[in-house]
Amino acid sequence: MIKFFENAPFVPVQCGYAVEKILHKEKSRFQEIMVIENSDFGRMLLLDGVVQMTEADEFFYHEMITHVVMHAHPEPKQVIVIGGGDGGVVREVLKHKSIEKVYFIEIDEKVIEVSRKFFPAISCGNDDPRVEIRPMDGAEFVKKAPKGGIDAIIVDSTDIIGFARSLYTKDFFSSVKKCLGENGFFVTHSESLLFHRDTVVKVQEILKNAFPVVDLYSTPLATYPGYWWTFAVGSLSLDPRQARRPFEIQTKYYDDEIHANSFLTRKFYDRLMADRLGWGIKARIEKG
Amino acid sequence: MIKFFENAPFVPVQCGYAVEKILHKEKSRFQEIMVIENSDFGRMLLLDGVVQMTEADEFFYHEMITHVVMHAHPEPKQVIVIGGGDGGVVREVLKHKSIEKVYFIEIDEKVIEVSRKFFPAISCGNDDPRVEIRPMDGAEFVKKAPKGGIDAIIVDSTDIIGFARSLYTKDFFSSVKKCLGENGFFVTHSESLLFHRDTVVKVQEILKNAFPVVDLYSTPLATYPGYWWTFAVGSLSLDPRQARRPFEIQTKYYDDEIHANSFLTRKFYDRLMADRLGWGIKARIEKG
Repeated sequence: MIKFFENAPFVPVQCGYAVEKILHKEKSRFQEIMVIENSDFGRMLLLDGVVQMTEADEFFYHEMITHVVMHAHPEPKQVIVIGGGDGGVVREVLKHKSIEKVYFIEIDEKVIEVSRKFFPAISCGNDDPRVEIRPMDGAEFVKKAPKGGIDAIIVDSTDIIGFARSLYTKDFFSSVKKCLGENGFFVTHSESLLFHRDTVVKVQEILKNAFPVVDLYSTPLATYPGYWWTFAVGSLSLDPRQARRPFEIQTKYYDDEIHANSFLTRKFYDRLMADRLGWGIKARIEKG
Repeated sequence: MIKFFENAPFVPVQCGYAVEKILHKEKSRFQEIMVIENSDFGRMLLLDGVVQMTEADEFFYHEMITHVVMHAHPEPKQVIVIGGGDGGVVREVLKHKSIEKVYFIEIDEKVIEVSRKFFPAISCGNDDPRVEIRPMDGAEFVKKAPKGGIDAIIVDSTDIIGFARSLYTKDFFSSVKKCLGENGFFVTHSESLLFHRDTVVKVQEILKNAFPVVDLYSTPLATYPGYWWTFAVGSLSLDPRQARRPFEIQTKYYDDEIHANSFLTRKFYDRLMADRLGWGIKARIEKG
């Protein structure tokens, strides 16, 4: 994500946001949580100085990480959201009438608390009776989750590198598969096709070790560097490119046509995975 | 485009590239031309301090502005390229065997000269015998161009605002239509869907006054702010979404599947044009 920079050291690419006002700053057990005001992007949530979410463009990310698998599944009832303490994914999941239960597993309850206060339009689903908030490690929760009853697991983690440590293990995916129902989906963001292609490919490969069906779709984003943001999806049986339910919810970006269109074209996907794209951009923007 | 910044004034969003070496700097009759070296993006061409092109990601732009109309046309032979002094569009046009003539109309011959020296892999088509270089105003050239014989006009201008002054006139489009053949296409970039949506819509509206068929496609880009870059296409008869020729050229991004996939989905296009997207991001990044 884009580092919030002040007296940034020399890096090839710099990207930053003016801090017009610091609305909140605290150290939780896990990280530094900050909410700032920027006149173009509105309120922005930063964790350890890295932009996680802005009011202006959060919907791209939250809609796209959620609604693709929600529509690919014939009738999602039980969903686990790991991370996403701001509540954006939970809000989107709840738009689906079939939903009976959302396990909202965020390791840092301070993020939930701060978001409730500063991002009421994003955390607005938290108090829905269908939502069960559990401040704990996602891997631990999945290990003990009800077997076979979960329709989708959505991982909205900070960054893949930190994330990889606790979640990208054989054990984790073994637990994931046990708790997913036969039409179950797993989805996670997997960084940028422009700037973090190695990560995109690596996440696909890890998912291929765990799921019979693995795919990749993308969305434009304004505030993460790399902009061309990807989501990796694993499925126990169904093709995620196909929407199996009518598009009946209110969204700002996702719709039934964008569903299919957001997936990488087959040829491009094959070239990506075979390392035959013939280009690579390694912008060391994160250090800025 | 992204301003190259040194002691930038306060703006909500900043984006900049470290200048590791200034390879060239001169004032032409029209603008300041600069070539810099950046360790992540390679050599970069700046006009009046604004990034026009980088070695690392030029292919997205050059392939996408060129090959969509080249493949939508059943047999492109004569093409006018307006702007694009770096030669990237000309290089892409020449990949098509049917091409007999490319009129390369760049107002600032110094840009062509500098690009020949510092970007040999981009300007490599300039000396092809099918290319006729004319250092002049594109609008003037089109006014006097052969009637009805042109298959595509590709406008690779700096920015739409400067561009609008001389090119976005009724006279210009009247000349364009006279020189295009019955299957002729006009294409121009039209800035970012994230950051310059007003421009995207305005260019569509202007083209709708001139062409019976108007459409909009996009590409990801690493180095222009807004990243989700658009191209506006006008056609005298044919639907640009349909490729009418086999994909037989060497590219790094464009292919026959990406051709169709790059167009905005119909619903999204309609929402955009009717101002029903329900969001808007106005990042004042350009002032940085």
